[in-house]
Amino acid sequence: MTLNPADEKLARLIRADLGEDIMRPVTERYLEEPRGRFTGHAGLLALPRTVDEVAALVRLALDKRVPVVPYGGGTGLVGGQVMPDGPAPLLISLERMTAIRAVYPTENILIAEAGAILADVQTAAEEANRLFPLALAAQGSCRIGGNLATNAGGVNVLRYGNARDLCLGLEAVLPSGEIWNGLSRLRKDNTGYDLRNLLIGAEGTLGIITAASLKLSPRPEAVGTAMVQVASPQAAIDLLSLAHDQLGEAVSTFELIHKQGLQFLTEVLPDVRQPFETQPEWCVLIELGLFAGHSPADALETLYIEADKAGLVGEAVIAQSEAQRMDLWAVRERIPEANRLIGSVSSHDISVPISRIPEFIQRGAEVVAALGLFRINCFGHVGDGNLHYNVFPPLGHSRSEFDDERQAVKHAVHDLVEAFGGSVSAEHGVGRLKVDDLERYGGATKLSAMRAIKAALDPQGIMNPGAVLRAD
Amino acid sequence: MTLNPADEKLARLIRADLGEDIMRPVTERYLEEPRGRFTGHAGLLALPRTVDEVAALVRLALDKRVPVVPYGGGTGLVGGQVMPDGPAPLLISLERMTAIRAVYPTENILIAEAGAILADVQTAAEEANRLFPLALAAQGSCRIGGNLATNAGGVNVLRYGNARDLCLGLEAVLPSGEIWNGLSRLRKDNTGYDLRNLLIGAEGTLGIITAASLKLSPRPEAVGTAMVQVASPQAAIDLLSLAHDQLGEAVSTFELIHKQGLQFLTEVLPDVRQPFETQPEWCVLIELGLFAGHSPADALETLYIEADKAGLVGEAVIAQSEAQRMDLWAVRERIPEANRLIGSVSSHDISVPISRIPEFIQRGAEVVAALGLFRINCFGHVGDGNLHYNVFPPLGHSRSEFDDERQAVKHAVHDLVEAFGGSVSAEHGVGRLKVDDLERYGGATKLSAMRAIKAALDPQGIMNPGAVLRAD
Repeated sequence: MTLNPADEKLARLIRADLGEDIMRPVTERYLEEPRGRFTGHAGLLALPRTVDEVAALVRLALDKRVPVVPYGGGTGLVGGQVMPDGPAPLLISLERMTAIRAVYPTENILIAEAGAILADVQTAAEEANRLFPLALAAQGSCRIGGNLATNAGGVNVLRYGNARDLCLGLEAVLPSGEIWNGLSRLRKDNTGYDLRNLLIGAEGTLGIITAASLKLSPRPEAVGTAMVQVASPQAAIDLLSLAHDQLGEAVSTFELIHKQGLQFLTEVLPDVRQPFETQPEWCVLIELGLFAGHSPADALETLYIEADKAGLVGEAVIAQSEAQRMDLWAVRERIPEANRLIGSVSSHDISVPISRIPEFIQRGAEVVAALGLFRINCFGHVGDGNLHYNVFPPLGHSRSEFDDERQAVKHAVHDLVEAFGGSVSAEHGVGRLKVDDLERYGGATKLSAMRAIKAALDPQGIMNPGAVLRAD
Repeated sequence: MTLNPADEKLARLIRADLGEDIMRPVTERYLEEPRGRFTGHAGLLALPRTVDEVAALVRLALDKRVPVVPYGGGTGLVGGQVMPDGPAPLLISLERMTAIRAVYPTENILIAEAGAILADVQTAAEEANRLFPLALAAQGSCRIGGNLATNAGGVNVLRYGNARDLCLGLEAVLPSGEIWNGLSRLRKDNTGYDLRNLLIGAEGTLGIITAASLKLSPRPEAVGTAMVQVASPQAAIDLLSLAHDQLGEAVSTFELIHKQGLQFLTEVLPDVRQPFETQPEWCVLIELGLFAGHSPADALETLYIEADKAGLVGEAVIAQSEAQRMDLWAVRERIPEANRLIGSVSSHDISVPISRIPEFIQRGAEVVAALGLFRINCFGHVGDGNLHYNVFPPLGHSRSEFDDERQAVKHAVHDLVEAFGGSVSAEHGVGRLKVDDLERYGGATKLSAMRAIKAALDPQGIMNPGAVLRAD
């Protein structure tokens, strides 16, 4: 399929159909992404206000065979939102479609437009005394449509699931320009194929999500947060099992942190309060959300006593105030910022079966050491089997010295992930960064099924070409 | 696409490839379904033992353009497992693939072959001190592959989700005869389109599920069960909200029961112990699953006191023993059996937004009353918005007297569901029973996307033709 650039001719058609105000000049921020690996280009930028306007834009683009790139908050880490080559696309930014259309507290449902900022969705839920549990570092700027398009994860997946698990229905514009109104308020609906989950995680390649029906949860009555030293990654996993046995779903967060992360904070973000006097090799951030008058302090103490008996834990800090809780959270939440300041040679968002994590961490260190003197900061959502496994230059060196090693490091880590039955994209998606990886590890059957689905729903290949699947 | 019947020529090819023992004579039970609405036919019946054998069968069928009907436990209520017309299909029964391949207690994962009986999966989880929460009336005979193919619901959806939410990965044979090994033990994997959820709920029309990686949960430490009279459906919903506020995820089951259901039990199953001396207009079965030493009796009492203050509840029976608990459950679980003995004019597995249930029940009674003197037994998973809304002849009459009214009743109920933004197939699926309904209510955009996906993955149309989508 030959596509055409979004040009002044298309702009005139769009203006004639949707008015002058729909267009904006393409500015830098729409062409950048947080890690600086890709720089996009674009012929036109449109800011629709309604699903009908999105549909009209897609129909015009389809008619002229112009590529379309849907744009949310621009926080994606794999380049799904920027198209670096090919005919200059029409960017469709959802930033004007930010309404919380409705909240149904009795039904535990909230309906948001795709451009709503994640933090605003959280706030709207809170105002109805409910919880929208999706939470991640970029929540102040990412948009819910992008969260769904990438099936975002974050720190509450353990208890509440990924973005996919928090969505009951979608309104979307398909590559045909047709509007699919699947904005269901139903918890059960077995009428045909699961288009919702097909669009979720498709990263804008099968259509543009314009609104979503989201699942809310009861707000826990009391929250308890602790940072606990653990003897090893295996001890962390055993501690989580123990926590589940004692507390069931009440474990909301369980994040593994390595000494390297604490050292990075000391190095570049010394304002972050360190949880322990001596930095431990491994620690975990645990958060419980409890109901029915169940005391977090009691629950954490009971858990600690049992874990201590089993030799799993060392020192622990239990937050005694909201300020202390925020301090503990800052340790976890600011590690990605420290990572960016240090500058990684290669970053990996990987998952492996939970019980294989300890072995993976050990083998990973060996594999990376064989390639040179790197520092590894391995941290993350251990309860989901999801590690952010980032490889850094030795102290005193910068990432630019290792440009030639980047591919070798990435392949070594990803090959190991594959050997462990893991995923090379746990929560960030494929975007443009991991198209090669998907081809390398995805398997022929899955890839051919994906290509068949793409061709069936987007025969002209206009929707976010080059993301997820290689453009023809 | 013209398809050919499964004949002796195909049988010879299958035997040559897979041995004599793979085939069985087609007996009656493979051609019947529980409600007696459909009678299937079949040319051949194969009982493969491995995914490779399933793939070989599909490839042979594809080569000869013979329709394939996957067969699980045969308990489906919408005729998805029986093909009544067209060229006689090859039935592929998964009944020999019953292995629990592995249990990973630390990971809360169990891998089962598609032919495993649901109750056996539950037992295997229990033996590892875990819970596989999918639970429904047919659990002693339905098979997990069929549960996934239909995205089964049941009595624990409120807390744990549908079959879809309990599955991490699939092994399946696609209509091309290729094997997709997506048997992931990962909680997070964002590498490409969601084939898993596309196959789940596709009712065998996009491939044959041969094994699944299933999500287990911690087993609650203590269970509390009560039958509570409620003032109205609205009071039931308010009681559920209150329970969620007090107890969060601990509410496992919340089932609404109408007086008509209790009367049916008296009429045809008098051995079922009635929970109350005087049958109330409405009652709910509540079950809690608690952790951390939290007493079910205390939790139920606290809930009851608050609900009583709010005027929501009447009498309540709290189970004091496992035997009493079983008695309360029998009231709910045996209503479908009573329904079958009475014989419905028309049965509806519908869902509506939870907050609209009271209005739906009221309007439904009016709509049905306008068509004649029927009895309505409306009961089910009110916390999921899912009602089994069944219409019966008046006392002393039989369903056969109302054959001419059946379509009118069904349309009236389903039109009302549609007007309420509901679903005409909440948990049973489309099968062959509701192909018309899907066309009527599904919407053109969704249907054309579904047809495009079907054509892309099954261009010859061999997989379970006529289920979900009309055969060409």
